[in-house]
Amino acid sequence: MKEEYGIVTTEIIEELQEIVGAKNVIFEDKEKLENYAADEAGEIFGHLPEAVVKPDSTEQVSKIMQLANRNKIPVTPRAAGSGLAGAAIPLYGGIVLSMERMNKILDIDKVNRVAVVEPGVITNELCLKVLDEGLMYAGYPMSIETSFISGNVATNAGGGKVIKYGNTRRHILGLEVVLPTGEVIELGGKFRKDTWGYNLLHLMIGSEGTLGIFTKIILNLVPCAGRTVDLLVPFGDIETAVNTVADIIVSAGIIPVAVEFMDKLSVDLTTKYLNTKIAFQDKAEAYLIIQLESESKEGLENLYEKVGEICLNNDALDVFVAESRTDSENIWKVRQEFAEGLRAADPYASLSGDVVVPLSKVPEMMREIKRISEKYNMRIPTAAHIADGNLHPELMKPANVSVEEWPKIAEEIYDEMTDIAIRLGGAGSGEHGIGFIKKPIFLKTKLEAELNLMRGIKKIFDPNFILNPGKII
Amino acid sequence: MKEEYGIVTTEIIEELQEIVGAKNVIFEDKEKLENYAADEAGEIFGHLPEAVVKPDSTEQVSKIMQLANRNKIPVTPRAAGSGLAGAAIPLYGGIVLSMERMNKILDIDKVNRVAVVEPGVITNELCLKVLDEGLMYAGYPMSIETSFISGNVATNAGGGKVIKYGNTRRHILGLEVVLPTGEVIELGGKFRKDTWGYNLLHLMIGSEGTLGIFTKIILNLVPCAGRTVDLLVPFGDIETAVNTVADIIVSAGIIPVAVEFMDKLSVDLTTKYLNTKIAFQDKAEAYLIIQLESESKEGLENLYEKVGEICLNNDALDVFVAESRTDSENIWKVRQEFAEGLRAADPYASLSGDVVVPLSKVPEMMREIKRISEKYNMRIPTAAHIADGNLHPELMKPANVSVEEWPKIAEEIYDEMTDIAIRLGGAGSGEHGIGFIKKPIFLKTKLEAELNLMRGIKKIFDPNFILNPGKII
Repeated sequence: MKEEYGIVTTEIIEELQEIVGAKNVIFEDKEKLENYAADEAGEIFGHLPEAVVKPDSTEQVSKIMQLANRNKIPVTPRAAGSGLAGAAIPLYGGIVLSMERMNKILDIDKVNRVAVVEPGVITNELCLKVLDEGLMYAGYPMSIETSFISGNVATNAGGGKVIKYGNTRRHILGLEVVLPTGEVIELGGKFRKDTWGYNLLHLMIGSEGTLGIFTKIILNLVPCAGRTVDLLVPFGDIETAVNTVADIIVSAGIIPVAVEFMDKLSVDLTTKYLNTKIAFQDKAEAYLIIQLESESKEGLENLYEKVGEICLNNDALDVFVAESRTDSENIWKVRQEFAEGLRAADPYASLSGDVVVPLSKVPEMMREIKRISEKYNMRIPTAAHIADGNLHPELMKPANVSVEEWPKIAEEIYDEMTDIAIRLGGAGSGEHGIGFIKKPIFLKTKLEAELNLMRGIKKIFDPNFILNPGKII
Repeated sequence: MKEEYGIVTTEIIEELQEIVGAKNVIFEDKEKLENYAADEAGEIFGHLPEAVVKPDSTEQVSKIMQLANRNKIPVTPRAAGSGLAGAAIPLYGGIVLSMERMNKILDIDKVNRVAVVEPGVITNELCLKVLDEGLMYAGYPMSIETSFISGNVATNAGGGKVIKYGNTRRHILGLEVVLPTGEVIELGGKFRKDTWGYNLLHLMIGSEGTLGIFTKIILNLVPCAGRTVDLLVPFGDIETAVNTVADIIVSAGIIPVAVEFMDKLSVDLTTKYLNTKIAFQDKAEAYLIIQLESESKEGLENLYEKVGEICLNNDALDVFVAESRTDSENIWKVRQEFAEGLRAADPYASLSGDVVVPLSKVPEMMREIKRISEKYNMRIPTAAHIADGNLHPELMKPANVSVEEWPKIAEEIYDEMTDIAIRLGGAGSGEHGIGFIKKPIFLKTKLEAELNLMRGIKKIFDPNFILNPGKII
């Protein structure tokens, strides 16, 4: 498609400078442009934009899109660049539209329990701000400290607390959207239910910046639920850990806030990076981190005693209950630094594993991952939002594979795992999205009838295919 | 558009009989066809289909759609016909596709906490069935005893428990859909998160039978939450009742399962119909019905004491705590029989009121309803899922208005209320949908840019505009 696109000429640069001010347009300066070339999938996937533009209002975004649409210049919206599927990479050059300056929390509305934010607000900044008001933003993902809210919306981010609070989708009540044509529409609002035409709001969520640019976001807030406690539970083997999850949720009917899984390898790599140790690292093949929540102290005690009992009945090696905030932070740190731990051990570690399967199929998926690991003689550390059936099997580059051939080999293995997840009744991405890295396997595994609908939708929203081309579809 | 449609000829009837069997095709028999002409919006809006077809498999539905698409015959899917916006009415004649025979619960999968059902399952049948397994289907609307699950999906139904459990959308994990062309696609699955292409699943939910026909539905189930209690709280005036809701949710941070509102008029009409009385009917101008839920008996007591105190601090006339299942049933009966009560008092009562506004705007919306009631000298009994800001202001035909002119006058008043709701930051339908009754005001109040996207989407899914024409867009 590339030859059909216009290029960012000097005249266009001048027009962009006119719209956002000269200091908010980057061009020619390769070093600065490189900061906008890649995302967390790795520099190896990067591509230089011709220009980076930093608007600070809806009006400016609209003008930029009108200009780009007239001149058929590709525009790639960029939030924090913390994505793992390459969705923010300007594959066809053109303009990167960075939302970094649109970073204001516009409104915290206690009565309606909503926040209204600009797209460039860092997730944790909002979380902390609403906490002051006794409220919680429960749509945050694992990358809470770096990701922008708009990026979370674009990928329908997940994270650790989906089993109880749902993914980002559940917490998005409204969006102001600039369409690829520059038109501005408002979807949803400060209300929690409506049946008022086709739900374009939900279509936008998870569209990875290919259908529209979010310039204002209305978020659902929930009352702080009171007390939580964190448990760290080591197991002698993986399957027992997995089965325990079903026992907690299904047999006991307890919905924790989070149930995170880490295998031995991922714990070893992460604790090494953190220069720490956690209990039973010599014996444990798998760990669960369980967060529970209750209205009252007694309720919470009752809950973690029940859960602890279930774990021990399932041959957990022990159950550690965090007794302080520091304890909790230490437990969660190991999970949160998973990606960093892998990268520290292997700078070429590929972090694109993100399959989702029905809970009942998690043991089989785990066995398949083990089989693949042995088949390719490759280390595949795996962490998981296990109660959601969302697994992150990551790939460590074997010594005998060259850096050049590695992305292709990694992709093939991810494709194999995706095929298995789909065969087990799951999907190829739980929360990272398709971007362009998962696009080939996505196109291969979807029915043509469904792909045609998606292609048709893309064309309706973006007749010139200028918004984030090369992604998803 | 009518002249462009084909008619249901004898040949087509024969083909339909071939597909579903002769006894599952109704034609020519006006009396039988009339059963499929209207919905709960009233017979006055009805329109006769040329034929009614009752498939019992996805394959049959697909064949019917292929036949209809080839011959450009309008097809109107029909669930239980309990809708209130006319979405199931065959405006252009053609075929009514009744899902009544596809009424099997296919699978209750405890480990994955999902049920898989056919479209014609009555909502309460599923609710009771999963209750036997210690699970709850929380996506049910107020019309639980009559509506079909597929109808709930088509309207993204709401009901009383949205504030805690969300509307039907939140509980739909997957759909098998027959497209207007007869193609079959599967969306979602037995998992709770994914970012795997444009979210066609959510686009289908709330599309009121205009984009596809649901032939299989995968539903989220939640563990039974334990104990609930119901409170009945009379207030001396409406605004105090409304303000109390914000105090409970916002100031105290308590999310009840349900907070229902009824004004004096709606209570009077419903209790008259039920031949009963509830407390303080002489003095109370408004009632709240509040359902609370907790893990434990103590938690529940603690909760209803807090809520009771908040109510009394807000000048509630009293707080009645249901002490038995019978008590609870008696309280809820008054709310559940609201529509019947109105209809009994006035067979021409119009039940299309369904605006939604931000919680903070409920008092203003209530004042506007009162103003309109006085302006037109018309009784407007109002019930509301008030914690969601979803109000049902219904219209009683004044004696001096003729039956013939009534629908037009009612529509004008609903339009006026819709305009106000939208001005207050809300929407024209919280849960009933647009159908064709709300279509004019929907088209009038939406931006052309957004309508064009919706029209484009409709065309992508249904190039010949045969599926439920005349609805929404």
